[in-house]
Amino acid sequence: MILIGMFDSPFVRRVAVSMKLLGMDYDHRNWSVGRDQAQIRQYNPLGRVPTLVLDDGEALVESAAILDYLDETVGPERALLPARGPVRRRGLKLMSIASGAAEKAVTQVYENVFRPAEKRHEPWVQRCREQTEGALAELDHACAALPKDGWLLGERMTQADITVVCAFTFIREAAGTDTARFPALSALAARCEAMTEFRSLHVPFFTPTPPK
Amino acid sequence: MILIGMFDSPFVRRVAVSMKLLGMDYDHRNWSVGRDQAQIRQYNPLGRVPTLVLDDGEALVESAAILDYLDETVGPERALLPARGPVRRRGLKLMSIASGAAEKAVTQVYENVFRPAEKRHEPWVQRCREQTEGALAELDHACAALPKDGWLLGERMTQADITVVCAFTFIREAAGTDTARFPALSALAARCEAMTEFRSLHVPFFTPTPPK
Repeated sequence: MILIGMFDSPFVRRVAVSMKLLGMDYDHRNWSVGRDQAQIRQYNPLGRVPTLVLDDGEALVESAAILDYLDETVGPERALLPARGPVRRRGLKLMSIASGAAEKAVTQVYENVFRPAEKRHEPWVQRCREQTEGALAELDHACAALPKDGWLLGERMTQADITVVCAFTFIREAAGTDTARFPALSALAARCEAMTEFRSLHVPFFTPTPPK
Repeated sequence: MILIGMFDSPFVRRVAVSMKLLGMDYDHRNWSVGRDQAQIRQYNPLGRVPTLVLDDGEALVESAAILDYLDETVGPERALLPARGPVRRRGLKLMSIASGAAEKAVTQVYENVFRPAEKRHEPWVQRCREQTEGALAELDHACAALPKDGWLLGERMTQADITVVCAFTFIREAAGTDTARFPALSALAARCEAMTEFRSLHVPFFTPTPPK
């Protein structure tokens, strides 16, 4: 399999961390959605990452669809999210909130990366920032209700923890959000980021030069 | 259940059409992400739609998570997407491409809706437009390979058809894309849009006045 995308994307990273935890190998193409857009489009008409090219040449083009495939491949015992039931419900909810927060952080970043300074519109960035921070507050609330060393969906780490932590670390680094306001979420992130699977797939966010 | 969001969003609409096809009732809150943002945030910290409030008060906050819930609720015989296997894979892929195309169309619309004219950046809009059109071309290719009156995943209509058609109609109306270039996709959309379930949940896209 070939995984396309840079690990500073929380969506690429959640796939890469999941594959590492599940012991699945892949070749990595460290392609940027800016610089390498044309190359990415050869596999994904949207030019987005992550894109996972399977051994038969089929390309999966969105992180949620890729995670669904990985879980089905490893089977219900090892899957990172249950295939049905209330735990899946709760997991998908937390993952939706985390992914949405990360998407709104991406929007904040794109405001700087893809347009010159005089075209930036601060009220729009502020709106996205409020959406991101509202989501982080709800995730922090969920983390605060956990027992010590507990995981979001119970006794073991699941996709909810992976997605939430990848989103949180990205938001802190890329959008410059003051994360001290979210102590329980920060603590969960610190525990995960100390693990080899997360640490070895951490690339600090690099802000490309905006256009003139 | 309460479904929050306006039907001119392809993500709200795919949920509403699915619920109608599955015979599931709901109260509708026709709230706008612009005007009614604060009200939406009472149920969804991201302030996004669709949000589905279940009878126990739990809110599901993303269309993919809502569709997952609906399919589990009605059971495998009536589910709009199989729970596993190659047909699910293919469906999720087409849905990812359609959703991504719609998201990039939303970005084009937001460029006009949420910022004054002098802050618009045409190269950014053009980039998003190319992403949307690349995705539509791939969906058109998939439709062109279908037998007459066939559906994207086989003999019956599935979530792939619903999501693709809701995205396509939105893109045509909201982003002004020239859809004549996608005849096979246009034909699938015309067949679906003629059905009561789609027609009764069609609200022409209304562009709010941009800020000064």
